[in-house]
Parts: sequence; C-alpha cells; structure tokens
Amino acid sequence: MSNTSPAAPLVPPEPGDLPPEVFEAHATALARWVADYLRNTERYPVLSTLAPGEFRQRIPDAAPEAPEPLEAILADLDRVVMPGVTHWNHPAFFAYFANTASVPGILGELVIAALNQVGILWRTSPALSELETATTGWLGRAMGLPEGWFAMLTDTASVSTLQALAAARERDPSLGIRHEGMGGRPEVPRMRIYCSEHAHSSVDKAAITLGIGAANVVRLPGDDAYRMRVDALEAAIAADRARGYRPIAVVATVGTTSTTSVDPVDRIAAVCAREGLWLHVDAAYAGVLALVPEHRHHFAGLEHADSLVVNAHKWLFTPMDCSVLWTRHPQLLKRAFSLTPAYLETAEQDVALSQSDYSFQLGRRFRALKLWFVLRAFGLEGLRERLRHHCALARRFAGWVEAEPGWRMLAPVPMSVACFRHEPAGMTDEAALAAHNARILDRVNASGQVFLSHTKLGTRYVLRLAVGNVRTREAHVALAWRLLREAAG
Amino acid sequence: MSNTSPAAPLVPPEPGDLPPEVFEAHATALARWVADYLRNTERYPVLSTLAPGEFRQRIPDAAPEAPEPLEAILADLDRVVMPGVTHWNHPAFFAYFANTASVPGILGELVIAALNQVGILWRTSPALSELETATTGWLGRAMGLPEGWFAMLTDTASVSTLQALAAARERDPSLGIRHEGMGGRPEVPRMRIYCSEHAHSSVDKAAITLGIGAANVVRLPGDDAYRMRVDALEAAIAADRARGYRPIAVVATVGTTSTTSVDPVDRIAAVCAREGLWLHVDAAYAGVLALVPEHRHHFAGLEHADSLVVNAHKWLFTPMDCSVLWTRHPQLLKRAFSLTPAYLETAEQDVALSQSDYSFQLGRRFRALKLWFVLRAFGLEGLRERLRHHCALARRFAGWVEAEPGWRMLAPVPMSVACFRHEPAGMTDEAALAAHNARILDRVNASGQVFLSHTKLGTRYVLRLAVGNVRTREAHVALAWRLLREAAG
Repeated sequence: MSNTSPAAPLVPPEPGDLPPEVFEAHATALARWVADYLRNTERYPVLSTLAPGEFRQRIPDAAPEAPEPLEAILADLDRVVMPGVTHWNHPAFFAYFANTASVPGILGELVIAALNQVGILWRTSPALSELETATTGWLGRAMGLPEGWFAMLTDTASVSTLQALAAARERDPSLGIRHEGMGGRPEVPRMRIYCSEHAHSSVDKAAITLGIGAANVVRLPGDDAYRMRVDALEAAIAADRARGYRPIAVVATVGTTSTTSVDPVDRIAAVCAREGLWLHVDAAYAGVLALVPEHRHHFAGLEHADSLVVNAHKWLFTPMDCSVLWTRHPQLLKRAFSLTPAYLETAEQDVALSQSDYSFQLGRRFRALKLWFVLRAFGLEGLRERLRHHCALARRFAGWVEAEPGWRMLAPVPMSVACFRHEPAGMTDEAALAAHNARILDRVNASGQVFLSHTKLGTRYVLRLAVGNVRTREAHVALAWRLLREAAG
Repeated sequence: MSNTSPAAPLVPPEPGDLPPEVFEAHATALARWVADYLRNTERYPVLSTLAPGEFRQRIPDAAPEAPEPLEAILADLDRVVMPGVTHWNHPAFFAYFANTASVPGILGELVIAALNQVGILWRTSPALSELETATTGWLGRAMGLPEGWFAMLTDTASVSTLQALAAARERDPSLGIRHEGMGGRPEVPRMRIYCSEHAHSSVDKAAITLGIGAANVVRLPGDDAYRMRVDALEAAIAADRARGYRPIAVVATVGTTSTTSVDPVDRIAAVCAREGLWLHVDAAYAGVLALVPEHRHHFAGLEHADSLVVNAHKWLFTPMDCSVLWTRHPQLLKRAFSLTPAYLETAEQDVALSQSDYSFQLGRRFRALKLWFVLRAFGLEGLRERLRHHCALARRFAGWVEAEPGWRMLAPVPMSVACFRHEPAGMTDEAALAAHNARILDRVNASGQVFLSHTKLGTRYVLRLAVGNVRTREAHVALAWRLLREAAG
C-alpha cells in the first residue's frame, strides 16, 4: 500500500495557525491592557465623540495582502478603535439598560473563544448542551420559577421573543402553519398579538418576521403608572373576535424599557387562560430582580406564563450576548422548529438534547460558560446585593430630583431607572420643554463624563437615568445629577 | 442645595466588580491555560466520550449562595468542562465543516468581551457599526464581489438566509406583508422558494419562520454531480405559476453541505432575472474560496445574486459566531425591518448606519473586531495559502481512496471535502453497506484520534472527510485514512 501512505508534505512547511507561544505572549499583554482599561475606564468619554463616517476613514480600503504582526494590530486598539467606542463598561453609563462585562464574564468569554464550541447537535458539544440546561436551571430556581420549565439561551431578547411567538403561532395544529405556511390559505386567520403601548419594539419585529404583520400587534393603552390596562385588553380581544380575527398571544412586560413599569401579569394571565392565549412575559431587563425576595412581588402571576425572556447580558453582568428563554411548552417550540437532515442524524438523538431542535438557528456559541462563571463568582448573595444597591441608587437620585425646585420625576421608580425632566418656572409648552430637555441631554452627554438617554411618555419628552453597570457607585450618580443641574442652568 | 449633594455612601463599601488586578492575574493564568490547550489539543479525544446526561451530573442542582473564588471556577475547566467538550479546535476534526478559533480570532474575542460593545444604534458603538462595514468591504473586495453591495454581520447563516428571504418576501410592496401580515388576506398568494435537494436545512427553517411554510420550499433534483438541475427549476416555476402560486426566490448553493457541489449560479441567475425572482446564494462554507484566483470559477454568475451569505466562522478561522450577509438591495432589508421607537431616536439617524435597521435583532456583538484581527494577522496571501493547502489535502485523501481496492469516492472533490465509503467485494445491498460504513465511522470516532461525520446521497450512506481547521496537517489526514482502513478490516 505504498501508494496510500503519507508522502512528503505537500507544502514544506505546511501552513497553520500562529504558534501557542505567540498566543500566550499577546494574550498576556492583552490581559494587562484590559486590566488597565477596567482601571481607567473613566478617562474615556462615555459616548464616543466621533462623527458619523469618521471612524471609517481610519481604516484602509483593502485588507492587507501580507500578514501583519500582532503587535501592530494590538497597537491599533488604542490608536484606531478606542475613539470609536462608546463605553458600556463605564460606571457612568446610564443610557438604555446597562450591560456590563464583569471580570468573571470576560474570563468566561476568553474560554468560550478558545474552546470554540459549536452547538449544532448534542454530540458537537455535550458540555454546551448540558451546561446550558444546568445554568438556566440554576437561574430559574433562584428566581422562583416553577420547576420543570424548559430553558435555553439565545443571543438577544429579540430572538427569544420571536421564538416564543413562533411557538404561539404553532399552537393550533389544525392551521398547519409550519408545513403549509400562511399564504394562499383562506383558512389561516388574521392573527393578533397584544401588548401595551410601552412594550418593546422586538414584539413588532417578531410579528413582522413571522408574517403576522406589524399592524396585528395591538398596542393597548397604559394606565397612569404605565401598566397595561386589562380592561382595554379584554375589549380589544372581544372586538377582534367579533371581526373574525384570531387572538393568539399577549406579551406582558415586567420592567418596561421607558419606565420599568410592571404590567399586571396575574390579571393578564387570567385573561389568557380564559381566552386560550399564549402569555409571553418580557422581563429582559428586570427578570433578574426576581432573585431578590423584596422584589419578587413584581412577578406575581409569572407562574402562569407560557414563556419568559430574561437577558443575562443586561442586569446580570454577563457580556453581550446572553438571553434566557423559558417556556412550559418545549414540545411546541420543537414542533415549530425541529428538522434533522440526514447528515445530522445521530444514534443519541432521541435521548440527548440539541438546542437547535428548538430554534431557527442551527449553530450556537457556548454562552452557558460565561453565565456559569458569573453566577459562581458573584454567588446569588453577591448578585442580590448589587441589584439592591442599584435600586437604592436610583431611588436616591429620584429623591434628589424631587427635592429640587424646577425638576420633576415623571414615573415611579420600582427598580433602578428614574424618569425625570427639568421644568423651569413658566415653561409649559410641551415643544419648548422637549427642546429644553434635549439640550440638557446633549450638553450632559457632550461632557463625556456620563451618558444618559431619553424616552417619550405620551407626548412628553423625558430624561432617563438607568443604573445597572456593576461598577456604578453613588459618586457616579451624584456626578450625573450635578452635570444635569449645571446643564439646565 | 445641601439636600441634593452626595451623602454618606448607601452601602459602605459599595459593591462592584472584582478588581482589575484580579482580572489581570486570572487572565494571565488563562492565557497560559489556553496556550497549553492549543499546544496539546491532540491529547484530548476529538469527540467527547460522555454519554447523554453524564455532564449534567457533574454540575450541582443550584447556584452557590456565596461567591466562589475564581481559582475554583478555573480549576473546574479541566475537571468538569473538558470531558464534555468536542474539540472543534483539534486538527483532526473532519466532521461537518470545520470552525477554527485561530490565535488572532481568540485574541479578538478577548477584546470584544472587554469592550462589550452593544450595537443597537450607531452611537452605541460607532466603531462597531463602521468596522463592520469596513471589514466586510475588505472581504467582499478580495472576493471580487461587485462594488456597492451592502454587507452586515449576523451570528449564523441561518439568520443571514432568514434575513435575505425576508427581504425577498418584502419585494412586492403591493402585498403589504410587513404591515398587514399574511393571515386572513386572500390577496397574499402561496409563496414558493426553490433550492436543490442538497441545499441546507436553514432554507426550510427560514421558510417556516417567515410563515411561508416548509412545504413551499421546492427541493429540486440534483444532477449526477449534485448540482441543481436548471431544467427542473424552470419546470417547477412554470407548474407553480400555473397553480396560482407565487415564486419569490431561489437559493443556489456554492459548496453544498454534503459534497461541496456547486449549483450553476450563472444559469440560475438568468432564470431569476427572467422570472423576477430573488437569487440568494448560500456559500456559507465555500464563499471564502473566492479569495483564491484558481477557485474563482466556482462563483461564475455570483455578480447577479441579490444576496449572499458566507460564514467567516467556518473556513476563515474566526471563532464562532460570524456570518457575513451581502445584498444589493439594502433598502428592501431596511423596509422589511427598520423600526425606531421614540427612545432610540437620535440626531444622527439619517446619516449614520445602524445595522439594527436591517435586522430583526436589535443588539449585536462587536464581531467585526475579530474578523479584522483575522484578516490582518493572516493577510490575504496567508489565507489563500491555507485554503489551497486544505484543498490539496482533500485531493490527496481522495487519491488514496481511489487507489485502494474496496474503497470508493462518491462525489467530486472541488474544494476541501471528500465523500467516500468502503464497499467490500460482494457487498451490494444498500442497507448492508450503510450499516458497514456506520460501523466504520463509529469505530474511527471512538478512537478519539479523529472525528468524521456522514451524509446521505440519494439512498446511499456516505462518509465525509472535511478539511478546514487551520491546524490540520497532512499527518492528520493520513491518520484518518489509516484508522478508516483499520476499522474496515
């Protein structure tokens, strides 16, 4: 068999990866660089000061033909990349919802990258598949979720909510949506999804993607505390049924994006049970607060939900991206999405869990590993302590606003977000107030010392201070307050 | 204003992250651990030897209440995690399509984690938004794609293809799919998508998700070389039109999953142009081969495509996940998905690119950074050299198979994948051949020294050897060949 034994190498020497020693040297240098960054984040402007297109000009038009030394690439981090970075890891990042790369989270990502697991089937990474079940089980148990719910990780809440609503769409097998689709089929009704006017835009995007249509997301009015009005939900369902539409799901939010208001999940659940609707709870930001006993009341009725999304990459100090989707109906998710081509059939497929059976995505990263690092390194007590601290900081900020003439809180502060604005004496016109507060926001953000964002509540332009970065201390909140008052003056 | 100045800290001391020094010490230790792993990957069995459920038993049922030291967590990598890992980074990983975490790719991931950019809007990370445009532009230019195509990164080809087909679904504005949806609307026709029997299952999953329906993915027969038969495509379109169905898109594959066969994109493009169909090209694995001049012929006609997906996390040595989606119709993608709630409105939104306008996902990781590291550290010449090497290794393996009595190649080897099997003299029954080769595969994989996978071509059970890990050398391919022959004996 001399003709089949290895001959001289094809290419002497054969190309390969850069050597492990090179990795170690540069990873060690990067460990120092990252530590310096974490130590000195506050030296950077929180919000990048580049104008649109400026960053692009720093990058050549074409990739290099010859390899470049890693030294040159790493040197470009400071020279090229950092000016274009908005510092989500800055302790005075108060915009949107915070998203921290904590120390255990970054270490977890390094291991994820090195092991480079690709979760396609169970056998392509048993550790990925089973650690995902284990860590989401840890989290669910600590949050007091019912035993037996199925959980998996996705990238973002947009995908978690999309998957949940796909399962809801699949619930009536007589419609045969998965197989036959929705087009050219008079028997497929107009489907309707309900949420409050304060619900996240991911609900609309999911409805668009699923072929349900943006117009079939019925946005119900909120009450004075920005909670879904259940009477409006009941009326909308009745009106839709009268028109021959098919209500399929309600998305209730615990911790809305603008004000962190809490929809009355228990009463909504009762409506869903009576009407046979899927109840999806969006607690992307606030869900982790269920870890804290004195905040558990926000989640009353959650045990009746059909699905739930909580983002570990928001208030659980896990780097982007890591969203947890729970459902009590894994069989529906599987019926919606499972599809095993011949080349992916394995002997163990009937007994081993492959998350791809529950998703439109096939491959997945080893996200569970960073969640495992974070849950262990902080411990549940450590996490509770940090969540409580952030809520206390937001309440303290609200106290300052309330005590200051000309400033006004515009929503309750049940969690770690304050909605407020400056209302100078005599300024009552809404457009003038909006322009005035937008100017304050621009000035404050231009300082580079803090970054806040805005929202709208009805017709009112509102400023938002959202606490959630693990490194935020009271001094950062106080700094924001000082800058706001200066900018208003 | 004494009532609003900072008082004593709320919690002395305030909780925060673990200190930067702790990060540096453990990241340095992990740099060494990862280097050792990369040096010694071959000491591990490629395919994890755990049975389903065994990994889960290594993990406690509940998260710890108290923080655990990082030392304990890192120690568990070897003790708990590694036995459940299937080593995608092993140079003898020959299953599916390889996916390497190269040295520059891992370093890139470390920086991505530390900076923790969240691409929601341009301003939440100008560097993310513009480096994504720059690096995908580099890649497209080096691949010879037409100037002016829009590109963005997604997690996986499943999502890239889903987005492309969503744009195709949106193409006829009179249908109003985005707004009104597909249900309860007799004017929405049954939509049809065409691909070959060898196309990837992500096409079916996209059709399911979009409400088009799995049955409306028309899988056309392939020819003897596993390429889509264009006559069958034309006949299927004509038959569907006669039934009142609406053909909307064709998915052509350059480098199919089983055999890396190449659909005749130029002739399919001509059909699409004549019929007004969207042409999506799935080159998730093979697309990077367009970097290599002597392989450019596989892509004839690609310039007529409406969209294209290429996975950097497959054959471009970038860690999971990083998929590139190109389209010549960004305005359709935007029309399908753009949606800006009030709290995300910014002054720069009309001039700055936010990738979320083109996707159902809102937040995104800074994937462009690792792609930038990989393209620069290897250089285009370095990448071409590695791709050529892998193709040469697959051809050499095919030569060994062809020269060996009882063994047979079952498909051409245009790229880096060989399809083959053992056909012992006298064994002609297909079921017997399948069982025999499945046994060979199990034995070879149980050796722990290599990992191959199988596929089916028509009724035939086929073994597959896919070269693509950046660390694979001829010795690894020779080892696979020796083990295969031993297992057959």
